[in-house]
Amino acid sequence: MSLISNIKIILVEPAGDRNIGSIARVMKNMCFTQLVLVNPKCDPFSEDAQMMAVHGVDILKNAMVVDSLASALNGCQRAIATTARPRGIPTPLETPRTALGWLLEANVTSALIFGPEDRGLSNQELSHGQRFICIPSNPEYPSLNLAQAVGVCLYELYQSQDNSQNYPETIPETTELASLEALEGYYQHLEKVLLEVNYLYPHTAQPKMEKFRRLINRTNLQAQELAMLRGILRQMEWKLKNPTP
Amino acid sequence: MSLISNIKIILVEPAGDRNIGSIARVMKNMCFTQLVLVNPKCDPFSEDAQMMAVHGVDILKNAMVVDSLASALNGCQRAIATTARPRGIPTPLETPRTALGWLLEANVTSALIFGPEDRGLSNQELSHGQRFICIPSNPEYPSLNLAQAVGVCLYELYQSQDNSQNYPETIPETTELASLEALEGYYQHLEKVLLEVNYLYPHTAQPKMEKFRRLINRTNLQAQELAMLRGILRQMEWKLKNPTP
Repeated sequence: MSLISNIKIILVEPAGDRNIGSIARVMKNMCFTQLVLVNPKCDPFSEDAQMMAVHGVDILKNAMVVDSLASALNGCQRAIATTARPRGIPTPLETPRTALGWLLEANVTSALIFGPEDRGLSNQELSHGQRFICIPSNPEYPSLNLAQAVGVCLYELYQSQDNSQNYPETIPETTELASLEALEGYYQHLEKVLLEVNYLYPHTAQPKMEKFRRLINRTNLQAQELAMLRGILRQMEWKLKNPTP
Repeated sequence: MSLISNIKIILVEPAGDRNIGSIARVMKNMCFTQLVLVNPKCDPFSEDAQMMAVHGVDILKNAMVVDSLASALNGCQRAIATTARPRGIPTPLETPRTALGWLLEANVTSALIFGPEDRGLSNQELSHGQRFICIPSNPEYPSLNLAQAVGVCLYELYQSQDNSQNYPETIPETTELASLEALEGYYQHLEKVLLEVNYLYPHTAQPKMEKFRRLINRTNLQAQELAMLRGILRQMEWKLKNPTP
């Protein structure tokens, strides 16, 4: 099993310095580190590129610039090439979701190759890849911005790792579910107040309270929230006894 | 089963015109059409924005500009809000992959909400969502560029389309969800009553109402249930004006 940081992200003849900066940023977001630029057609270290990279600027500054796709692939054992459309490649096009995990499967160095903004990878460049992916999209306008296409692929790769350890804590530890006993106390209290304000009448109380119980029961009410709901009831009762003159 | 084109993409206070343009482009790539901007902090129709939109420029030009998140949500019945980090929201954070299909499940209008580039959605803004998603990413640098974050979510939605046709309907067809507009009306009404009984005071109203919104938002309230809750409020008000002698 390989690490995401071992995957080289190779851009062939990128022409937009801002795109390169954005790609450095999303690489950092998704834990990638190795950016390789083949014959860039712009200054990849421009101020604009650095501005777009934000905290990924170290990745931008460490980017390797090479003069051929073959040298970019030096040392790699697996490579996937991206394309926006089928080009008569005699190998099936796959989706990022189904194919990208393959780059992580074995303990090897691997690469993901993207073409220039205006034309994508040529057939010759594509032939450096062993597998080919195409991002599913609107057949009437399939051409994603380069940085977006890289973002989607890196997101898929990040997802295909076991990233459960990285996922942020979703619920603060202090939250505690309301006990069923406390819930029951609330329903009794609510029924009493609703009878008092003539929303409920003794003979109609049960079916209405059942609807209310079903509604509250599906919320997995927390103890704090229950305390809030009871606070509202108590304050209602107080105000009924002490109306504003 | 709803169509992707029925999902509103809502940007709260976006500050980068190029980002807005990029978002229009990726919306077109993924078959979305409805862009709504809440108080944009830049010119969303600038030349730079149009340049970035490329063939998505029609989406940009048709973008709706509104002055509040509540009005952006008019007519929507399901809303998912995005966040880059847990903020002590007592509702589980989900991933785009697990949660987004829900926007397509039923034949309703729904929305996906993104916050401003620099700060993300505030707790108050988040409380307009019923579910919350966070894009899995590097815990040391989780903050994606806004257009990238939108791109990843739209890609996930585009991918989930085919599968969502197989989802079992989770709610029987006869039940109709409360519209977000009607929910908003209820929250306003509740706040008024709670101020009247001195449960709320003007300076504490907002955080308490946020807790209440989160609680109710996660119930997927049905139109009938909302009518019941409003009936209770109206009866409370009536009783306060007509106390038992």
